[in-house]
Amino acid sequence: MAWADPVDWAQLLDGTACPMCADAHLVTNQSSQLITELRQSYARLVHNQYRRGYTVVILKRHANELFELSDAELAGYWRDVADTAAAVQHVFGAVKINYAVLGNLCPHVHCHLVPLYVADNPPPLLDMGDGEVLLDSDRFAQIVADLRRELGRHAELSDGPVVP
Amino acid sequence: MAWADPVDWAQLLDGTACPMCADAHLVTNQSSQLITELRQSYARLVHNQYRRGYTVVILKRHANELFELSDAELAGYWRDVADTAAAVQHVFGAVKINYAVLGNLCPHVHCHLVPLYVADNPPPLLDMGDGEVLLDSDRFAQIVADLRRELGRHAELSDGPVVP
Repeated sequence: MAWADPVDWAQLLDGTACPMCADAHLVTNQSSQLITELRQSYARLVHNQYRRGYTVVILKRHANELFELSDAELAGYWRDVADTAAAVQHVFGAVKINYAVLGNLCPHVHCHLVPLYVADNPPPLLDMGDGEVLLDSDRFAQIVADLRRELGRHAELSDGPVVP
Repeated sequence: MAWADPVDWAQLLDGTACPMCADAHLVTNQSSQLITELRQSYARLVHNQYRRGYTVVILKRHANELFELSDAELAGYWRDVADTAAAVQHVFGAVKINYAVLGNLCPHVHCHLVPLYVADNPPPLLDMGDGEVLLDSDRFAQIVADLRRELGRHAELSDGPVVP
């Protein structure tokens, strides 16, 4: 675990060496592509589409635990997560969405959205390393566009600013 | 998965056969013990303490996905989860809290709070079946009391009603 090295872990906790602070806003980074900027977060499509629609929703500001957020930040962040999950379900027709805020490698608050489908029979735990599926770039870009459009539709219905 | 049987799954989704609707409010049930009732949820200590402080925060009303909740419900629910996580960290000194809303066995919205400690070296995924530790009843009751007191202290600082 990242906390095995106290110096490294301290720099992840205080944000001075946080990889998500460095790249969560970029159009493309090593692990994912930006779908859209939301109220409190960036919604990103993970390159590894081992579950169709696997996305992450990354808090814009650096924080490590949910209880560090103000009421307004917490409410806005989970509205972002819920809107993204609704978009994923609308685009992909998942039977269940799994939501996980872990942060054992990088403690910066981010939520994994892992859609499950009728044909899936996963164990009750959530395994983000359960295989790797890389789509061709056209297909991947199409999914990003579909989710962005769907999230924009949600934004029109809500009060928060969503920048497509 | 529960959705392998469409009839069973439909009754879990609509709440007519939801085990959490039946027992989330009880002082003791098969899997956990009530810590306290919060704004939108029940905080419960899981009998299996394979990670010290493993708790669940169960939404009071029946819903299957976060995007089914109103803004007020969503904000209140995550304040409950964050307050419970803060209490767990205060009582146990966890190095990181993991938060997971899955629902592949029972889709009723509930969040697993799994505290991790400096000595832990879990895989980056979250495995709620990674061992079983049952405490003696006195120790378990003491933890419930500690968390309830700590959550009560949070409640005094916030606007929400918390019934100890």
